[in-house]
Amino acid sequence: MTASRDADGPVEPAPETGALADPAYREAVVDLLAAITYGEISAFDRLAEDSLLAPTLEDKLAVARMAAVELGHVDLLQARIAELGADPHAALAPFRAAVDRFHEHTAPADWWESLVKAYVGDGLAADFYREIAAYLDPRTRDVVIASLADTGHSDFVVDRVQAAIAEDHRLGGRLALWGRRLMGEALTQAQRVAAERDALTALLAGGVDRPALDLAAIGRMFARITELHAERMAKLGLDS
Amino acid sequence: MTASRDADGPVEPAPETGALADPAYREAVVDLLAAITYGEISAFDRLAEDSLLAPTLEDKLAVARMAAVELGHVDLLQARIAELGADPHAALAPFRAAVDRFHEHTAPADWWESLVKAYVGDGLAADFYREIAAYLDPRTRDVVIASLADTGHSDFVVDRVQAAIAEDHRLGGRLALWGRRLMGEALTQAQRVAAERDALTALLAGGVDRPALDLAAIGRMFARITELHAERMAKLGLDS
Repeated sequence: MTASRDADGPVEPAPETGALADPAYREAVVDLLAAITYGEISAFDRLAEDSLLAPTLEDKLAVARMAAVELGHVDLLQARIAELGADPHAALAPFRAAVDRFHEHTAPADWWESLVKAYVGDGLAADFYREIAAYLDPRTRDVVIASLADTGHSDFVVDRVQAAIAEDHRLGGRLALWGRRLMGEALTQAQRVAAERDALTALLAGGVDRPALDLAAIGRMFARITELHAERMAKLGLDS
Repeated sequence: MTASRDADGPVEPAPETGALADPAYREAVVDLLAAITYGEISAFDRLAEDSLLAPTLEDKLAVARMAAVELGHVDLLQARIAELGADPHAALAPFRAAVDRFHEHTAPADWWESLVKAYVGDGLAADFYREIAAYLDPRTRDVVIASLADTGHSDFVVDRVQAAIAEDHRLGGRLALWGRRLMGEALTQAQRVAAERDALTALLAGGVDRPALDLAAIGRMFARITELHAERMAKLGLDS
C-alpha cells in the first residue's frame, strides 16, 4: 500500500464502525479531504508566486507566511487519507482540473487583486468546508477544522486593502467587482466537482448514522456562506 | 523604532555587555543575521518556484516543504536583529544584490539542477555560517544554529539524484559540473560581500572578549568547507 510511505510506521487503518463502515461514505470523505488538500497545495503555489509582487519586504513575508501555513496543513490531511486506505497522492488527481481552472480564471492582475483573492478565496473555502465538517465523523471533522486555521496571518490584508482604497476610490470599485468574480468562479468550479463526484455529493444527502441535508438546508447553507462573504468584503471596505 | 512592530510587545534590547558592548561587533552581527535572513527568504522564493517543475506531486511537496522550512527560520533571525536595535527589514537591503546575483547566475536549467542546487547550496551556506557561529556571543550563536536546521527534508534529494544518474550517466557529468559552478558562484558572491561590509569582515579578525581568526585559521576553515562540499557531492554520486 502506497499510503504507508508517508507515515513513520505502517498506517493504522481507521476502524470500520459507524459511518466509516459505509464504503460510499469513506469514498466521499477521501474525496473531500483530497479536494481540500489539492486546494491548499495550489494556494501555496499561488501565494508564493504572488509574494514576488509585494511592494515591500514586510508585505512579501506576510504573504509568503500565508503560503507556508497552507502547506503546513497538507501532512495532516494526507495522513487521514492514508488512514482511510487511499493513496494520499493519487487521491488528489480528480480535483486538479477544477482547482487549476479556478486559478486560471482568477489570475490576479496586480498586488491588490492578489491580496483580495488570498483573503476572500481562503475565507470562502474555509466557510464551505466548515459547513460540510458538521456532517463528518468526529476524527475527520477534527482534521478538516484543523486544516482551516489561518493563524491570523490574513489580518494584514485587511489593513493593506483598507489603506489602499482610502487613497484611491476607483481601486475600491475594481476590487469589489473582483470579489464578485472570485465568488462566481468558486461556485462554478464547486458545481463542476459536484457534478463529477457522485459520492461526494451523496455525502450531503446523509446515510447510516448521519443526518441528511435536504434542499432547504442546502439553501440555508449557501445563504450563510454568501452572508459571510459579504461580511468579509465589508471588512475590506468593499461592496459585495 | 520599527523593530518593535514585529514582536508581540516592545523589543527587549540585548544587554550591552561582553562582545555586545562593542558597536563594531553589534554591527557585524546584524550584518551576519541579515545576510542569513535574506538568503533564507530568497531560498524560499527559488524553492517555491522550483517546486512547480517537479515531475510528481510527491516531489513537488518535498521541495515546497524545504521552501517552508527556510521561511520558518526568518522570524527567529529577525527577532534577534530587532533585539540588537536594528530594523529587521531595512538591515537586509545591503545583501540583496549579492544573493540575487547568486541566483541569477545559477538559474537551474531543469528539475535535476534545481534539486542539486537546493541540496548543495543550502549545505554550503549552512557549513559557512556554522563556522562563523563559533565566533559569536552565545545567544546569537543559538539563533544562527537554529536557523540552519533543515529537518531532514533534503534527504529525498539524495535518493532522487542517485536514481536519476544511475539511469543516465551523462546527467551525472552535467550535474558534477553544475556542483562546481554553484561552489564557484557562492565564493564569488561571498567575496563581494566581504569586500563591501567591513564590520562583517572584521568580525573574523576578533576583538574584545573574542578570539581572532588568523589567515591560517581562515585557510583551514575554507579547507573544511571544501571538504564537506566534496562529501555532499559524493553522497549524491557526483564527482566534485
